[in-house]
Amino acid sequence: MKKFYIAKARRLRGTPFSSRIENQGLTAYTVYNHMLMPAGFEGTAKEYSHLKKHVQVWDVAAERQVQIEGKDSAKLVQLMTCRNLSASKVGRCYYAPIIDEQGKMLNDPIILKISENKLWISLADSDVDLYAKGLASGFNLEAKVSEPDVNILAVQGAKSFKLMEKILGKKITELKFFGFDYFNFKGNKFFIARSGWSKQGGYEIYVENRETGLNLYDELFSAGKEFNVKPGCPNLIERIESGLLSCGNDFDNGDNPYECGLDKYIDIESDVSYLGKKALGQILKEGIKRKLMGVKIDLDKIEMMEEKPLHNSKSLVGYLRSAVYSPHFKKVVGIAMIKKEYWDKKTSFELEINGKKSKGLICDLPLV
Amino acid sequence: MKKFYIAKARRLRGTPFSSRIENQGLTAYTVYNHMLMPAGFEGTAKEYSHLKKHVQVWDVAAERQVQIEGKDSAKLVQLMTCRNLSASKVGRCYYAPIIDEQGKMLNDPIILKISENKLWISLADSDVDLYAKGLASGFNLEAKVSEPDVNILAVQGAKSFKLMEKILGKKITELKFFGFDYFNFKGNKFFIARSGWSKQGGYEIYVENRETGLNLYDELFSAGKEFNVKPGCPNLIERIESGLLSCGNDFDNGDNPYECGLDKYIDIESDVSYLGKKALGQILKEGIKRKLMGVKIDLDKIEMMEEKPLHNSKSLVGYLRSAVYSPHFKKVVGIAMIKKEYWDKKTSFELEINGKKSKGLICDLPLV
Repeated sequence: MKKFYIAKARRLRGTPFSSRIENQGLTAYTVYNHMLMPAGFEGTAKEYSHLKKHVQVWDVAAERQVQIEGKDSAKLVQLMTCRNLSASKVGRCYYAPIIDEQGKMLNDPIILKISENKLWISLADSDVDLYAKGLASGFNLEAKVSEPDVNILAVQGAKSFKLMEKILGKKITELKFFGFDYFNFKGNKFFIARSGWSKQGGYEIYVENRETGLNLYDELFSAGKEFNVKPGCPNLIERIESGLLSCGNDFDNGDNPYECGLDKYIDIESDVSYLGKKALGQILKEGIKRKLMGVKIDLDKIEMMEEKPLHNSKSLVGYLRSAVYSPHFKKVVGIAMIKKEYWDKKTSFELEINGKKSKGLICDLPLV
Repeated sequence: MKKFYIAKARRLRGTPFSSRIENQGLTAYTVYNHMLMPAGFEGTAKEYSHLKKHVQVWDVAAERQVQIEGKDSAKLVQLMTCRNLSASKVGRCYYAPIIDEQGKMLNDPIILKISENKLWISLADSDVDLYAKGLASGFNLEAKVSEPDVNILAVQGAKSFKLMEKILGKKITELKFFGFDYFNFKGNKFFIARSGWSKQGGYEIYVENRETGLNLYDELFSAGKEFNVKPGCPNLIERIESGLLSCGNDFDNGDNPYECGLDKYIDIESDVSYLGKKALGQILKEGIKRKLMGVKIDLDKIEMMEEKPLHNSKSLVGYLRSAVYSPHFKKVVGIAMIKKEYWDKKTSFELEINGKKSKGLICDLPLV
């Protein structure tokens, strides 16, 4: 694959940590929510092994927050998601598909209930703030939509708990999965959630003050030496093996949450009111005709810039959406939108790249 | 400035022309509306000279279209923009600021009236489709919001008219500025507007069929040899000199259209209904305290990744938003948000970069 530079500009905003990570071996960026997000250091496979054994600090400031505040904030947030949030609690995170009136996916953020009248939507890559603004205006809701200057540092990996305990004390280890709270570091409060875009465990630090955030960043690296800390970024191999979906890669506005396997985050039965509920009810009644599944393919490398068709004899089995070589499985693993008649796990298929056909098998998600 | 690669993925969609331009000397990409947009070939200064003398073909497929169709399409589009579109005509393009209920900028697209019940919003970089979906749902409008598979090829530069006439015949030269129509090429119809993101003149071809679009792309290069045609991209020098604003660079959601100098696209007097009208009325009454202006700075190069403060003695004059070295002025030129007390054209200021201070002067836009 030919490589191209990224042309920097104010429009692709840097983060408070950009100057740090650029001096720590960064090689590649991606763009996410109009911001630069680190995308490579020593190579995906090396970073994968390191993440599973040690601990990494990720500059994921590009996971922007949409803040919804006001009397109707809960109502507005519920309008956008098919997950029933009526029993949601302050101090908890909720993975929640954002859908449109046709029941199609717009984003799959974590929603954080900060207080009864204030929520943060911690975004995947799309301008959900504009959707919220349109709905707030249209439904005449008392809900202010804004983007606070919050920049997330993720601490991920096997030793993330040890590193965070060393810096923040025992209390941080008592935080439950998808819980959040404020923690003290050198006299400054930090909003920290036990979450993150890997299944190796860890935390996300919602940095609200750039200066104190940089102090904490530096402390993570100096205190983290004994745990072999390194800078990192969301890892393609780890997230595919773990079945963590990527908005824009695995699904887009052409797919509904049932097709994405998000059934448990869809409420049809209760009386909560959200856009797309009628459409999803109809889809549930009719049944979906395709869904996202795992695949394993007999290849030792792959490059994915667009979806690739998978065939069984001459029939279309589905489309490969994301894929990467897995050192664990010693073959390519991926996430694919598979047609219903091929959901049987033993279904084999062929993938043709540059005239060469490779065999593959469908499997469940997550792969590990 | 350190250079970093762009990490490709399905999420940053390529265009029908990506494989062509990558073999034609492309060096850098930017990301725009979740797509790859070419950002450099031989260097900005060389491309600038070439654009002003010859003709370039730009892959600007990332200028996505939001299609608004249905009985209430005009009403929905009017809700989003402060420009009065009540007398808009089929076959015409309208530059129109998109604003939120606070009267702040969300985008500055070209709106094309395709038919009485169908409009295209040809976007700068933000998900206006989500704003439109939110408003359509909230106001219960009969307007379908979608993203058609339309990929723009811009033909720009001094000789663009000659090249297009050679391929499409005399009729294309009769198209008025900001008019559009269908034109025939080898039996296929192409939607073409006389528009484009340079002041050197030219056209934008809205490619609706990928295969015939590639044929036309190849023809532009083979027929264009005698006009010294080259691949290109929006040029930073040309667009700053010409005063063409860049969404996300020169303005963002913190600015209102008066501050952006877009007064002539703001309707307060008539009875058209749009979001933010009340806020803009109040702003007009109170008067703005800052606005975008041109600047010239005694430097022979500059890199812009974030806005930079401009000072006069110890007072803040404003913020530099975009800047580049201009071979024409033999100094750096830029676009800056200038405080009211410094609008006097002769105001001088200092810009400090890495401890070194440079002198500059405020001027009008456009610079040429």
